[in-house]
Amino acid sequence: MGNKVLIVGGVAGGASTAARLRRMDEEAEIIIFEQGPHISFANCGLPYHIGKVIEEREKLLVQTPEAMEARFNVEVRIKNKVVKIDRANQELEVKDLESDETYREDYDYVVLSPGADPIKPPVPGVDGDRIFTLRNIPDTDEIKGYVDQHKPDSAVVVGGGYIGVEMAENLHERGLDVSIVELAPQVLGPLDREMAAQVHNHLRMKGIELYLDNGVAGLADQEDKKKVSLSNGEELTTDLVIMAAGVSPNTELAQKAGLEIGETGGIKVNDYLQTSDPNIYAIGDAIEVTDAVTSNPAYIPLAGPANKQGRIVANNLTGAKEKFPGSQGTAIAKVFDLTVAGTGNNEKQLTEADIDYEVSYINKKNHAGYYPGAVPMTLKILFTPDEGRLLGAQIVGYEGVDKRIDVLATAIRFEKTVFDLQDLDLAYAPPFGSAKDPVNMAGFAAGNILNDKVDVIHWHQIDELADDAILLDVREEVEVKLGQIDGSVNIPLNSLRDRLEELDKSKEVVVYCAVGLRGYIGARILMQHGFENVKNLAGGYKLYSAVQKDEQGIIDDSTTPEGERLTSISNPEEGQQAEEEIEKTTSEL
Amino acid sequence: MGNKVLIVGGVAGGASTAARLRRMDEEAEIIIFEQGPHISFANCGLPYHIGKVIEEREKLLVQTPEAMEARFNVEVRIKNKVVKIDRANQELEVKDLESDETYREDYDYVVLSPGADPIKPPVPGVDGDRIFTLRNIPDTDEIKGYVDQHKPDSAVVVGGGYIGVEMAENLHERGLDVSIVELAPQVLGPLDREMAAQVHNHLRMKGIELYLDNGVAGLADQEDKKKVSLSNGEELTTDLVIMAAGVSPNTELAQKAGLEIGETGGIKVNDYLQTSDPNIYAIGDAIEVTDAVTSNPAYIPLAGPANKQGRIVANNLTGAKEKFPGSQGTAIAKVFDLTVAGTGNNEKQLTEADIDYEVSYINKKNHAGYYPGAVPMTLKILFTPDEGRLLGAQIVGYEGVDKRIDVLATAIRFEKTVFDLQDLDLAYAPPFGSAKDPVNMAGFAAGNILNDKVDVIHWHQIDELADDAILLDVREEVEVKLGQIDGSVNIPLNSLRDRLEELDKSKEVVVYCAVGLRGYIGARILMQHGFENVKNLAGGYKLYSAVQKDEQGIIDDSTTPEGERLTSISNPEEGQQAEEEIEKTTSEL
Repeated sequence: MGNKVLIVGGVAGGASTAARLRRMDEEAEIIIFEQGPHISFANCGLPYHIGKVIEEREKLLVQTPEAMEARFNVEVRIKNKVVKIDRANQELEVKDLESDETYREDYDYVVLSPGADPIKPPVPGVDGDRIFTLRNIPDTDEIKGYVDQHKPDSAVVVGGGYIGVEMAENLHERGLDVSIVELAPQVLGPLDREMAAQVHNHLRMKGIELYLDNGVAGLADQEDKKKVSLSNGEELTTDLVIMAAGVSPNTELAQKAGLEIGETGGIKVNDYLQTSDPNIYAIGDAIEVTDAVTSNPAYIPLAGPANKQGRIVANNLTGAKEKFPGSQGTAIAKVFDLTVAGTGNNEKQLTEADIDYEVSYINKKNHAGYYPGAVPMTLKILFTPDEGRLLGAQIVGYEGVDKRIDVLATAIRFEKTVFDLQDLDLAYAPPFGSAKDPVNMAGFAAGNILNDKVDVIHWHQIDELADDAILLDVREEVEVKLGQIDGSVNIPLNSLRDRLEELDKSKEVVVYCAVGLRGYIGARILMQHGFENVKNLAGGYKLYSAVQKDEQGIIDDSTTPEGERLTSISNPEEGQQAEEEIEKTTSEL
Repeated sequence: MGNKVLIVGGVAGGASTAARLRRMDEEAEIIIFEQGPHISFANCGLPYHIGKVIEEREKLLVQTPEAMEARFNVEVRIKNKVVKIDRANQELEVKDLESDETYREDYDYVVLSPGADPIKPPVPGVDGDRIFTLRNIPDTDEIKGYVDQHKPDSAVVVGGGYIGVEMAENLHERGLDVSIVELAPQVLGPLDREMAAQVHNHLRMKGIELYLDNGVAGLADQEDKKKVSLSNGEELTTDLVIMAAGVSPNTELAQKAGLEIGETGGIKVNDYLQTSDPNIYAIGDAIEVTDAVTSNPAYIPLAGPANKQGRIVANNLTGAKEKFPGSQGTAIAKVFDLTVAGTGNNEKQLTEADIDYEVSYINKKNHAGYYPGAVPMTLKILFTPDEGRLLGAQIVGYEGVDKRIDVLATAIRFEKTVFDLQDLDLAYAPPFGSAKDPVNMAGFAAGNILNDKVDVIHWHQIDELADDAILLDVREEVEVKLGQIDGSVNIPLNSLRDRLEELDKSKEVVVYCAVGLRGYIGARILMQHGFENVKNLAGGYKLYSAVQKDEQGIIDDSTTPEGERLTSISNPEEGQQAEEEIEKTTSEL
């Protein structure tokens, strides 16, 4: 095996490859070519430096060329752009961006880690000034420099993905009025609609204006401001625009070299991360991966897989035969007070892939309710309707969301079912969890559906109910004051057994409570007393009303940890009472 | 199937059984007998009410008899003690503790959930006043009442298990000087020695006095104080004594009824949680379970399994055939600033079970180092030396420990290997994790050992090294000031390639750094340059010196989140520099 390895791109995947390769092989000749001025910088930290959460710029420079060379005996050529792969001669053509000179470097192996480029919508004015993208340190310097110097009042963020939402938050923290414009009907695409509703409500409450289902039609200067024309005809006036409309894989080099490109637009690689040329590997945001759940091709540009791919390629370059097992797109974001996370496939993806699924929700606190500081999370899982194999999960909440998404990501990676979640032996002490963890509860709730212990109905099916269907609200009277689904009958759960005769057994009955737990108990009571068409509203009134509030643009002050504790009721005592009522049953399913 | 079910004990498992049973069967006759005055109270919250962390006593009463009856139509008889099981007649003999009358109740099925009793060492004076145990609400009232009223200055906690340590913390928070007396050489038995050392150091720094390897020989009054005589002859003077020396399963009823008792002392049950009488089930702290890792019988009294067992029994009583898959003893505790957790088997258990194992450590921050507030954790995994199957894990750290132990518990439950940890697709954003999560890193470190990329030596083997072995410290000079293993040679890692000739290739070389990462890189360099006997010190100097400090009783101010950030060096600038040096490589293994 030859031992001269040229690495194109020195950030996440490229730097990982070089470091691991050197540890495996002291003799290899390793050169990193990076067109930018930095290697291995803190990609995911950039918005937080603009927001001054990460105050020192140097913190972003995780690894410098000098340190990399000293530690790993790797040659790092920054500001050197690889312009061509000459596969026939096994040479790269490289342009030194400082001297403008072009030279050639021969190789035994190439590792392509060129990353991705921000997408700029091709609209008039998109190349004007004060229109920024955020991908690297120079971008960060530009945006932060502009904010520091000009102290702008407002910003429009185009794109509501992870970076868009993080930028909105950080610019808001800098005192700007921020609007998000998003082409889809929702922010954070990995979430499904009803989960995103909770994020929308929180963003609105924090003062972020949302323009959803809306594109940018044009950008122009207007006096000392920028004018942003939306596709629906609205016009926004702002000081600066952040283009965060996603990224596309940087495949220019690969395409010119005739390497195969996948159907999703990323460089095609095999399980060993080899391109169609066995001497050329590719990793990171430039490649197409296999969706670990569906086994379909997917484009999932995330830092975690990129770093792990670098390590695998280094191993394979030194004699191993390691497979990259595919990506499941596990991702997480802080969105002001919220933590939002997803893993595996969502409803949109499963529908597109033509895979049958069922979903269930639980709403449970991050730790024992009696220990101070407990806050709820909404946890959704998606699973096959036959065996209950886990297909995906989404969580919106506060503390403890990261833990549960990682446990669920682990279960999904191992191709486990909702029943496997029931028995997980997770760590419990009052400051950290509950005797039945939210993940166990998710397994219980889904298992009840699959074992026909209960039928569920979903938030979007309420409007399609027959006119004579009974909507049975089993919450306490105090909770009904929080709002109710139109046309509901209220019989608090504890009175239900005594008041069964008030309900018509021949009709469809949809039971609901705050989050779905008492509704389930109510449904079980009815089913066993001769009611033949009983359903429980999955996610309860809380989930249903989150979508309603979102659609109506209602500002909901309760979407904070404090607000959650009082269930948004104006009278704190009643809120407390309602909360305890909810609490009484949350340890059981 | 008959439908009259009598449940003996109304706390965790018993209450869970009743609630699930009612949901599955509206017609069943369900009676809970509870000898105490409360059902379903917050067992694990008791120490925190004494410490005033949970201020309101009512918070501890998760479920009341009235609420249970109203919601689940279950009859709850508190202060009713079951005194006999008459299996021949299928009747229980019950004593009403208020009226002192005895009556009989017939059954189709019995569920035994009598819990466990605190162990009181049989030493002189153990039944005197101001000697408390903590198991239920009345116990809590007694201790808290005493502390509130008498404002004692000091307390001795006998037993350093989870409850003992939590009590020590909570009494300390109430202003008492607290000592812990523990029979074993360490607190928190689920940890191994070197992991417990970090807890000892933290407890000492917080002002808790530790008397390890030491039992209580006797208790006596001495003027207005209690005198605690230790087995090593020392005498402690204190205001009150908490007996937290563990619990033993309450098997009295079962034994009298001739039910089979397991070798660990708990009631023996089959996979379906049936006792040797198929009409009698048993759950919770009273039973023997199967160790999910070794498949050996085990006694693991924890709240999580108890609650889940209750649900399984209810399902089995209504036609299901569900197995309890065994316990792996996942547990966690807050110990002042620390979070301490374990799952699966530790070295002591594996040695006793005669199972071969290897261990590895990593030390990594809970989230990206460049994002504010990052704090390290020491993560230990145990695995089979052949295939790398995970056998156990232990973590000592601050934030984020609970997440990693749950992911590892999940991997262990699914019988996965260290290699499976490498690919886990876990959620990464700077506030929550790293592109390579500590769990991934644990997989990398263990994989390197199994793939013969590096040999390791453990903290307890340093003293056994041959006299001419070379101890090579590859840390920076600034870090050497933090302390060093006696007789070490210091060659900072970045200079190692240039200074190889200073080392004798014929000798054994033990490389070490702060936490094991640069040591590994150094070992790789030496191995590839002709050194034939090279080992890396697992866990690095930090782990080694934690044991040293513990053994010498040195107070170490650095075992706090703030102290960790400065690596305990007196000059903050040098500390920062050292920390960054450590940081530079932590993204790689």
